[in-house]
Parts: sequence; C-alpha cells; structure tokens
Amino acid sequence: MKEPLRSLTQEMIPAVEQAMEDVLLANDRAGDSFYGMMHYHMGWVDESFQPLLANAGKRVRPLLALLSARSAGGDWEKTVPGAASLELLHNFSLIHDDIQDASPTRRGRPTIWNLWGVNLAINSGDAMFALAHESMIRMVDRGVPAKIVVHALRRLDETCIDLTIGQHADMLFEERDDVTVEQYLEMIGGKTAALLSFSTELGALVAGRNKDIVDHYASFGKDLGMAFQVRDDILGIWGDETVIGKSSATDIVTRKKSLPILYGLSKSDELIDLYSQSENGENFVQQVVQLLDGVRAHEFAQAYEEKYANSALTHLEAANPEGAAAVALRQLTMILLNRQA
Amino acid sequence: MKEPLRSLTQEMIPAVEQAMEDVLLANDRAGDSFYGMMHYHMGWVDESFQPLLANAGKRVRPLLALLSARSAGGDWEKTVPGAASLELLHNFSLIHDDIQDASPTRRGRPTIWNLWGVNLAINSGDAMFALAHESMIRMVDRGVPAKIVVHALRRLDETCIDLTIGQHADMLFEERDDVTVEQYLEMIGGKTAALLSFSTELGALVAGRNKDIVDHYASFGKDLGMAFQVRDDILGIWGDETVIGKSSATDIVTRKKSLPILYGLSKSDELIDLYSQSENGENFVQQVVQLLDGVRAHEFAQAYEEKYANSALTHLEAANPEGAAAVALRQLTMILLNRQA
Repeated sequence: MKEPLRSLTQEMIPAVEQAMEDVLLANDRAGDSFYGMMHYHMGWVDESFQPLLANAGKRVRPLLALLSARSAGGDWEKTVPGAASLELLHNFSLIHDDIQDASPTRRGRPTIWNLWGVNLAINSGDAMFALAHESMIRMVDRGVPAKIVVHALRRLDETCIDLTIGQHADMLFEERDDVTVEQYLEMIGGKTAALLSFSTELGALVAGRNKDIVDHYASFGKDLGMAFQVRDDILGIWGDETVIGKSSATDIVTRKKSLPILYGLSKSDELIDLYSQSENGENFVQQVVQLLDGVRAHEFAQAYEEKYANSALTHLEAANPEGAAAVALRQLTMILLNRQA
Repeated sequence: MKEPLRSLTQEMIPAVEQAMEDVLLANDRAGDSFYGMMHYHMGWVDESFQPLLANAGKRVRPLLALLSARSAGGDWEKTVPGAASLELLHNFSLIHDDIQDASPTRRGRPTIWNLWGVNLAINSGDAMFALAHESMIRMVDRGVPAKIVVHALRRLDETCIDLTIGQHADMLFEERDDVTVEQYLEMIGGKTAALLSFSTELGALVAGRNKDIVDHYASFGKDLGMAFQVRDDILGIWGDETVIGKSSATDIVTRKKSLPILYGLSKSDELIDLYSQSENGENFVQQVVQLLDGVRAHEFAQAYEEKYANSALTHLEAANPEGAAAVALRQLTMILLNRQA
C-alpha cells in the first residue's frame, strides 16, 4: 500500500476495531456464548471463545467513511463509532446471508449457523443489527450534534431497507428465468452498493457539508459499489483462477444469475437451452463460456464496470476532497477498482 | 372496556395503526411482495396481498406508551411514531420467533416462514426491525427534540439487546436440565418484560420527565411484564381450557420449562424421573399436574405473580400519573393482570 493510504489506514483501522470491541463488550463478556458467537464471527476468538488472530476482513466500509470524513474537512475521530457501525451492519447481513445461502464457511472458517445452528445464528445477527445502531448512536458521546446523529440513523435505516429489498429480490431471482439486466442492476444497487454509498455519505454528513457535497460523496460510493460488484461478476467467470480449473468457475457451476450470464441468456437461445437442462453436463462450464464469448458478454459487462468506475471517480472529484485523506481515498478507490493509479 | 380507557383507546390506536401503515408503505406498495409479506404479518392483507380484516393483535405496547406519555403530562400525538415503533419491534421479534419455534400458525393464520420459506422470512423480520427504528426516528418530524429521540433510540437498541439475550437464553434452556428459577426470571425479564418496560418508559421520556419519574414508569412496565408472563405460565398448566382437556395443556405436553415446572423439578425427584423419559406416557399431563400440586408449584408461581403485580402498581402510583390517562392506565393494568379494579 502506498502513502498516505498506508499510514492513514494504520491510524484509523485500530480505532474502528476498538470501537467495535467496545460495543460488542469484547473484554467484559469474553466466554459468554451470546457475545462470544458475535466475537467469533468478527474473527476475534475461536469456536471455544479463545483469543485468535484470524483474517478479520478488510474493513473497507469504515475506511471509506473515515477517509471521506477527513477529506471533507471533518473530524475522523468523532466519526469512528459511525464507521464501526457500518462494519457491524455489514457483518449482521453476512450472518443472515450465510444462513440464507446455506454457506458452510466464510473466510476459511465455519459459519456460525454451521457451528451453533440456524436459530441461534438468526438471533446473533439480530443482536449485531441492534449493536450496529448502538455504535452509530455513540457518535453523540464524541460530540457529534444530536441532529446529525438522528439524520445518520435515518440514513442507516433507509440503507437497511435498501439492503433487505436487494436481498429479497436476489432470493426471488433464483426462482425466475426472466430477470432483466435493469432488474439485476437495481438488485445489486441495494444488496451491494447501498451500504458503500452510505459509507462515503456518512463521512461528509458528519463533516457537516451541504447537500450537494454529501450527494457527490454518496454517488461516489454507490458507483464504486456497482463497479466493484460488476467486476466481481466478471471475475466469477473469467477470473484467473476460474480460467485455470473449471471447478473454480462457481458462478457458472451454481448457475448464479450474474450480469454476464443474464446478458448471455437475453442474447443466446442456446444458452437458455443449456441452462434449462436440470443437470450440468460434461464440459458445461466450457460450453457456457463459449456461448458467453460468442455474444461478447465479457465486453458488455466490462462496459458497465467502466461506466460505473468513471462515474465514481467523477463524483469523487466533484466533491472536492482535500488533503492527504483525498489522496488516500483516490488510492483506495484505485485498489478497489483494480486500476493503475 | 370501561371509560376513560375505552375512549382513549379508540382515539389512540387508529393513530398508531396509521403511523405503522405510513412506515410500512401500506398504500404505495400494496401487492409488492417485499412489503406485502410484512403487511400480511401485521394482519392487513391476506396471503395474496388482498385487503383483509384480520385479528391484528391487541397493540398493548403502543397503548401503554401513549397512556404513559399523556399521564406523565406529555403530548401523546408526538409520541405516536415511537409507539408504532414498539409494535413493529414486537412484530419483528415474532417473525423470527416463529421461525425459531417452527410455529406453523399465529393468531389462526399461517406464519410467514410457513407461507414463503425461512429465508424470505428472516429477511422480512430484518426489514421490520429497520422500519421499527425508522418509525422511532419519525418523532423528530412531530417536534420531539433530537436529543430525546437519540436517547429513545439508544434505549430501543438496549432493549433489543435485552430481547436477544433473553431469546438466546431461552433457546439454550431447551437443551439444559439445570435451569434455576433465578435464571428463568432473568430470561423472561429480557424476552418479555424488557419491551413492556421500554414502552412505559418511552412515554415518560418523550414527556420530558426527570430520571426518577422515568425510572418509576420503566419499573412499572417491567414488573407488569413479569407478572403477565408468570400468569401466562400458570394458565399454561392450570388455565380453564387446560383443565378441561389434557391436549390443551401444551406447556406440559411440549415440556416447556415454565416457572411452575422449573420449581417442580427442583422439588420433586419423581418429576425429574418423569421428564427424563423420552416419550410422554398415558396420563402424562395428569401425573405432572399431580406432582406439581404436591409441591405447591401453583402457589409458588402465584406468589411471584402477586409480588410483581403489586410492585408494578406501587411504581405506577410513585410515578404520580395524572388525569384521565392515569385512570385509563390503571384500568389497562388491571385488565392485563386480570384483576378486579
């Protein structure tokens, strides 16, 4: 990681981690199974609630929020409990997602429903959801005005509704054959991009900026999230790993309706036929990739990725971010978009 | 229902219903399956999302909040979105409870997991949770100061944590044979009484009363909730319906560890033996009731019920409630405690 992103990350992320530990009572309630399940999910303890140095996730959302706050002229330290709230909200949604997707593992460790059962895991996600709110509220304890905190909470809950609408649509799409590209983009706009949008927005909100600037920060995060998801869809088919072994092309194997697939289904009757068969035949992955390449689905998706990435960068510059945090925010954006600076 | 409870209920409940319809977009999104599932759960539409006059629940929590607000000298109309929030929070917890308990029906209608599957139902509860917060926030739109709304939201989330801790304990208790009376009372304190406590507290908070008065209102609601749950436990064994037919004594049939049962298990080795058998034999219910009566479990539970009921009434009077709303609050309390006025 380059400077100044490197030093700002090293300063900010431990502060976020501390705020999350505070609200999750990491010290007081270690070993208590109610809090312990959440500590496990956060990567702080093992399944016996003993301390652990696990891969804890990248904390992208808090970092975007704090860099946005500082680049908008705000006090990033006052924003820390809000940044922690975003990560807790993200993790609440992961706990419930893992149940809904029946995912046995996450980041190489068993998921909490897998270890403790679906019922306790639903409840654990609910508790994490409440604690995400509690963390956002704690900004008042650091001197953020109550009016701004109420507005941030309102946007938090509107974001939750966008998330759950996106999740609802995603689950319904699994049963449908007629999902359009527009419907898909709207779905990922809720499921993936809404929380990234609120992350950058939150920074500008706490910095006390006007609506115009806040909207540019929000649009920057939203388009960044869209570009990121479309890129993920492309890598799920044409990524390095997936090109090597067909077994890694999970998006095709599981018949996930990602953007290139939906586009392919709208352009190729052969692909519709292939997908209408109840089982994946031999060379299924290769056949699908060939049909997708035939309709230039890769290029189609890439055009969307570039459109969103360029729009994200345009909104970021229109927001007039300042100082080292602005440089770091551009660097982080380039990493997330996987572009050269 | 007597006056003034009758007329105050008729004035307040439609206002709460309207606030819930507003936040759940009952008019704009009728027929949309995301909102429709929540409208169904609230009793407003049938499973095809067509309007319905169903048994919608008693809205006890909003009524307690609004009568508390008014009897504490506050403006009940400003408190309406907060009162609606309590009912939405209660219903979020019911949606997830029904999944966790695998309950096929609620109020005589199929539960939403039963109609639309567990995954969509988890998400629907999550959305209702977010909307409960959104409704609480809407008190600012009616002129409640932001500082009070932030405080109310903090108490809302602390209540959610109490609820989820209680729910977690309740699920763990099912697997345990060594639950004490104290542990059980703590569990129902979270699972049942915490939200009733917050309901009465909220009224006094929005009325702007001092900590002493707010605490009396909170303790009134808490003890009322405890008395209510213990009474429910007693009726689950010795209630009229359950005395008539053994099949109705579901708390015994399902071996629910309610207060009288836990007390019985701590006093009767014969009851432990009976409960350690893997299947319910013939006359199981009668045998259990006989053993419970032998250790005076009914009297034991009744003593707790009376202790909590008396404490609730003492706190209510110590809060010095005023006007017609105070009379109505006492009347509602007597109904909930099933006592003669």
